[in-house]
Amino acid sequence: MSHYYAEFFGTMILILLGDGVVANVCLSKTKGNNSGWIVIAFGWAFAVGVPAYIFGPASGASFNPALTLGLAAIGNLSWSLVPGYILAELLGAMAGAILVWLMYFPHWEATEDKGAKLAVFCTGPAIRNTPANFFSEFLGTFVLVFALLGVGQTASAPGFGPLIAAFIILVIGLSLGGTTGYAINPARDLGPRLIHAICPIAGKGDSDWGYAWIPVVAPICGGILGALAFVALLG
Amino acid sequence: MSHYYAEFFGTMILILLGDGVVANVCLSKTKGNNSGWIVIAFGWAFAVGVPAYIFGPASGASFNPALTLGLAAIGNLSWSLVPGYILAELLGAMAGAILVWLMYFPHWEATEDKGAKLAVFCTGPAIRNTPANFFSEFLGTFVLVFALLGVGQTASAPGFGPLIAAFIILVIGLSLGGTTGYAINPARDLGPRLIHAICPIAGKGDSDWGYAWIPVVAPICGGILGALAFVALLG
Amino acid sequence: MSHYYAEFFGTMILILLGDGVVANVCLSKTKGNNSGWIVIAFGWAFAVGVPAYIFGPASGASFNPALTLGLAAIGNLSWSLVPGYILAELLGAMAGAILVWLMYFPHWEATEDKGAKLAVFCTGPAIRNTPANFFSEFLGTFVLVFALLGVGQTASAPGFGPLIAAFIILVIGLSLGGTTGYAINPARDLGPRLIHAICPIAGKGDSDWGYAWIPVVAPICGGILGALAFVALLG
Amino acid sequence: MSHYYAEFFGTMILILLGDGVVANVCLSKTKGNNSGWIVIAFGWAFAVGVPAYIFGPASGASFNPALTLGLAAIGNLSWSLVPGYILAELLGAMAGAILVWLMYFPHWEATEDKGAKLAVFCTGPAIRNTPANFFSEFLGTFVLVFALLGVGQTASAPGFGPLIAAFIILVIGLSLGGTTGYAINPARDLGPRLIHAICPIAGKGDSDWGYAWIPVVAPICGGILGALAFVALLG
Repeated sequence: MSHYYAEFFGTMILILLGDGVVANVCLSKTKGNNSGWIVIAFGWAFAVGVPAYIFGPASGASFNPALTLGLAAIGNLSWSLVPGYILAELLGAMAGAILVWLMYFPHWEATEDKGAKLAVFCTGPAIRNTPANFFSEFLGTFVLVFALLGVGQTASAPGFGPLIAAFIILVIGLSLGGTTGYAINPARDLGPRLIHAICPIAGKGDSDWGYAWIPVVAPICGGILGALAFVALLG
Repeated sequence: MSHYYAEFFGTMILILLGDGVVANVCLSKTKGNNSGWIVIAFGWAFAVGVPAYIFGPASGASFNPALTLGLAAIGNLSWSLVPGYILAELLGAMAGAILVWLMYFPHWEATEDKGAKLAVFCTGPAIRNTPANFFSEFLGTFVLVFALLGVGQTASAPGFGPLIAAFIILVIGLSLGGTTGYAINPARDLGPRLIHAICPIAGKGDSDWGYAWIPVVAPICGGILGALAFVALLG
Repeated sequence: MSHYYAEFFGTMILILLGDGVVANVCLSKTKGNNSGWIVIAFGWAFAVGVPAYIFGPASGASFNPALTLGLAAIGNLSWSLVPGYILAELLGAMAGAILVWLMYFPHWEATEDKGAKLAVFCTGPAIRNTPANFFSEFLGTFVLVFALLGVGQTASAPGFGPLIAAFIILVIGLSLGGTTGYAINPARDLGPRLIHAICPIAGKGDSDWGYAWIPVVAPICGGILGALAFVALLG
Repeated sequence: MSHYYAEFFGTMILILLGDGVVANVCLSKTKGNNSGWIVIAFGWAFAVGVPAYIFGPASGASFNPALTLGLAAIGNLSWSLVPGYILAELLGAMAGAILVWLMYFPHWEATEDKGAKLAVFCTGPAIRNTPANFFSEFLGTFVLVFALLGVGQTASAPGFGPLIAAFIILVIGLSLGGTTGYAINPARDLGPRLIHAICPIAGKGDSDWGYAWIPVVAPICGGILGALAFVALLG
C-alpha cells in the first residue's frame, strides 16, 4: 500500500474510533452516555494504537501533520512526502468524521446540546483564553512528538511500538487533555470541523471557527519543536 | 483438541465472561451494579482475549461467524470447516449464556427491569432505527475483521496477538458500541437470545425477536466486506 | 528463595494490594472512596500480577490453595509440597491483612459501616444464597485455573506470563465478581477473615463465619476440576 | 545524554504528567473534572512509564530520591552519583510543576478550593495522623522499590520493563494511595510544593509545610529498606 493511502485510511480509522468515543460519551441516549474521561482517554489511545499496527509498516503511521512535520524537520521523513501525507491525513480525518456522523445517526437529533455535537468533531477550550489554549496544545503536542521519538531509546520486542504509542496518547489525554481536549493534531481537529460545517447534522450549531486556528497552529509548533528537542537532547 | 471443540469451548468462555460483565453492571444488587461503560468494555475485551490465548492454536480463535465467514471469503479458512465452526460457535454461545444465567441466579428475581435482563443476553438498539442500527453493526464488524487481519501487518513477538485483539475489542466497544451495544458477532447475539427465550429466567420479558436479525445479518455483511477490504488494500 | 518463603511473601503482597484496593474504595474518607468496580478489578489484577513477576521463578507464584491443589491434582506440583504451600499462603494472607489494617489505620474508626470493614478483609455474598454462592465461587475458580493453565497453549515472549495472568484476574473480577466478590482463593478469604476476627479493628462487627466455608470449599472444588478439565481438553 | 540531564528531564515529564492528571481531576471546569481515582492512578502509572522508556537507557530512570538511595544502598548505583541524581530529580520536579501551573493556567482562578489547588502539587493526608501517614508512605515506597527490583526475577522481552513499572505504580496508586495520596517519592512531593509556595498561583492557600517532611522522610526510609529487603530475600 502506498504511503499516502496508508495515511488516509489510518487517519480515517483514527477519527472513526476517536471521534466515535466522544460521540458515545457526549451524545444523548447512547449506551456510554456520560461514562467519563477514562472512556475518552482509553478510546483515543487505541484509536491511535490500532491503526498504527495496521498501517505502521506502510507509512510509519503518522496520521498527524504535526508529527509529519516534526519528522521531516529532523530528517526522519522526506520533505517531498510531506504535502501528500498532510493532504491524506486531512482527507482521512474528514472521511472518518463522516463515518461517525452516520454511525451515530439517530443520536444527533436526540441530542439537545449543540456544544456536545460540536465536541464530537473537534476540540474546544474548557476556558476560552487564547494564550493559555495555545500553550496547552503546544505543550501537549511537544510531549507527544518528543515521547513518540524518545521511547525508541529503549529497545523493544517486535510489535511493542504501537502499544507504547497508545499509552503515550492515554497519558496525554488523562494528564494534559483537561484544558482544550487534546487535539494535538491539526488534521484531527480541522478535518472533522469541516465535516461539521458542511454536513447537514441534525440541530447542529456553529463550528467555532474563531478557535479553529489554535489546534492547527499550536500543534504544528509543538510537533516541530518536540522533534528538534528530541534531536538536541537524545539524537 | 479439534477445531470444533475449540470453537465451542472458546465461545462458551467468551459469552460467560462477556455476558457476565453485562450481568454485573446491569442486574440489581450485584457488586458491580451501575459501574459503567469502562467496565463493560474491558470485560468484553478480555472475554475475547483470554479464550483467544487458550484456543488460538487449536482453531484460530474465531468465536464469531462473521469472522469465520470473512476468513473463508478470503481463503484463510477452508469453506469445509465453516458450517462446523458456526454451529460450534452458536452452541458455545448458548452454553455460555446458560452459565451466566446460573452464575447470577439470585439476581434475576432481584431485578425489576426486564430490559436489563434481556441486555445481559443480547444487544438492543439505544434508539430503534433499522437502517442506522444495521449500519452500526455493519461498520463495527467491518472494523473488527479489518483490524484483526490488519494488525498482522506489524510483526509481533510471540503471545502478543490475543492482547492486541483484546485492545481492538476494547476500542470498538468504547467508540462504536454506543448505538447498538456492539454485537459484531451473530453467535454472541443469537445464541444467548435463544437461551433467554427458552430458559425460565425469573421475571423475564420478551426476547425482542423483531430486532434479532440485525445483529446476525449486519455483522455477516460487515465481516465479509471487512475481510475483502483487507485483501484489496493490504493483502 | 525457598518455595515456601516465596509463597508466603507473594501472598502477603497479593493481599496487601488486593485488600488494600478494597480498603481504598470501601472505607470512609479515603482518597479513592466509592471509586467503583473498575478500581477494584484493576487493583486485584495487578495485586496478583506484580508478585507473580517477583516470585514466579521461585515458587511458580500460586498464592492460592485452590490453584496449588489443582496443579498437584494434574501432576504439575509435587504433593509433598502442597501442605507447605497452603500453610505459607494462609500465613502470607494473614500477614498481608495485618499490613492493610495498619496501612489504613485511621480509616477504621472513621468508617461507620461494619460491613464495609469486613469487606476489606474477606468476601461476602451480594445476595445470600448458599447453592448460588457456592456455584459462583466454584465457577470463578474453575475459569481461573483452567485459564491460567490454558493460556500456556499460546507460546509467549519472556515476561508475558504474569501480565496475562493479571488480565485473567481482571476479567474474572469484572465479569464473574458481581455475586460473591470473587474470593476464588481460600487463603485470600480465610486468612484475612481470621485477622478480622483476631485484631482489635476499631468498630468492627462480626466476621460472618457462617459464610466462611463457601470461599474455602467452592474454590478448592473449582480449582481441582478446572485443572482436570484442562488436562482432559487440552493436556 | 548525561545521567543527570536524564534524571532532570525524566522527572520533569513525570511531574508534568503526574501533577497534570491531578489538575485535570481536581481543578474546576476542566474536561476531566471529578473523573475519579481510576484516572488518577492510570495517569501516574504512565507518567512514570513513558519517561522510563525515554530516559531508562541514559540514567536508569530513577526519577525518585527514595529509589536512588535504595539503589545506592545495595550497590546498584554509585554513591558518587547520588547527590547529582537527587538534585536533578528535585529540580526536574520543580520544572514539571511550573509546566503544570502554566498548562492549567486559567483553571487556578476558576477553582475555589484551595486544598484542590495544593493537591495538584503535592500530597496531603486523607486523615491527618502522623504515625499512620508516615507508615503509609513508608510502606508504599517499600513496596515500590521492592517490586521494581523484584520483577527483574522474571526475565522479560526487551521493552517490557517500563510497562511493568507502570503497572506497579498503577496498583500502588489503586491499593495503597487511599490514605496519603502516594507521594512515595520525596522529589515528587517537595519539588512541586516549593513551586506552590513560590509561584503566584491565583487564589492559592498555604503549602502545608507541617506535613511536608513526611513524604520526604518516610519514602527515603521505605525505599532504602525495600531495597535491602530485596537483597536479603531475593538478591
